[in-house]
Amino acid sequence: MKLVVGSPGTVGGLLLRTGQCLFSSAAIAVMVSASGFSNYTAFCYLIASMGLQALWSLGLGCLDCYALRMKRDLNNPVLVSLFVVGDWVTATLSLAAACSSVGVTVLFVNDLEFCRLYPQLPCYKYEISIIFAFITWLLIAMSSLVMFCLLASV
Amino acid sequence: MKLVVGSPGTVGGLLLRTGQCLFSSAAIAVMVSASGFSNYTAFCYLIASMGLQALWSLGLGCLDCYALRMKRDLNNPVLVSLFVVGDWVTATLSLAAACSSVGVTVLFVNDLEFCRLYPQLPCYKYEISIIFAFITWLLIAMSSLVMFCLLASV
Repeated sequence: MKLVVGSPGTVGGLLLRTGQCLFSSAAIAVMVSASGFSNYTAFCYLIASMGLQALWSLGLGCLDCYALRMKRDLNNPVLVSLFVVGDWVTATLSLAAACSSVGVTVLFVNDLEFCRLYPQLPCYKYEISIIFAFITWLLIAMSSLVMFCLLASV
Repeated sequence: MKLVVGSPGTVGGLLLRTGQCLFSSAAIAVMVSASGFSNYTAFCYLIASMGLQALWSLGLGCLDCYALRMKRDLNNPVLVSLFVVGDWVTATLSLAAACSSVGVTVLFVNDLEFCRLYPQLPCYKYEISIIFAFITWLLIAMSSLVMFCLLASV
């Protein structure tokens, strides 16, 4: 199994996981700080999905730390298969959550013009949270691709 | 390059492409028949994305037909790389379109209760169109996975 940049147990992998964890936590924090988010299913789903993503990335980040400190090799087929499935599932859920929230926000901003009509609606916070969710998705998509390449090279 | 069920130039591949083409066309037809869909960005994006998907699947379906009739082998690395990129891009766009439309529809049905307040809103048509879009995504995801496995086995 060849070594790819960003594979588990390397500094690149740890950086990717840290980024995912930070951005998904930031997406949750900004969304929670936006008043009235809980009235909208899409935003609640965004928080749930980003929470799952943060937990998954935190777990794999800790594993990367352990592997780096103990100089252990994590590139065995069973572990990588597990990482591939987990990464693809969380990546799909993150994209779905980000896109459904984008759908709702575009509706509020452009189509129904709720953001102009009801200035108390914290639309800019919804937007910032969604941007963080998309950055998280980009990072997890990179991880997923690396894992797939690793699995294919078994 | 080994042969996988659903790979290009096989009956399985042709069936997958036909299914994608049919379901994406059905999603477009149902959405277009729903009055007032053009007021909502997410539903317009669904039509655009399903249109792209239908064209892509139609093109590859025709290629599969040609390969089956002429008994040509389409499994060469350059062609498969092209199929992988196209399939992944259209799959991501289809998922994004379906999810953003789901976000808006759930908002209309549950959160804002527009469907109950404004009975002239054809919510059930939005829902049927989105179901077709998700079936299209499932089929294109299967194609993408097959293509990735094919590319990995080069």
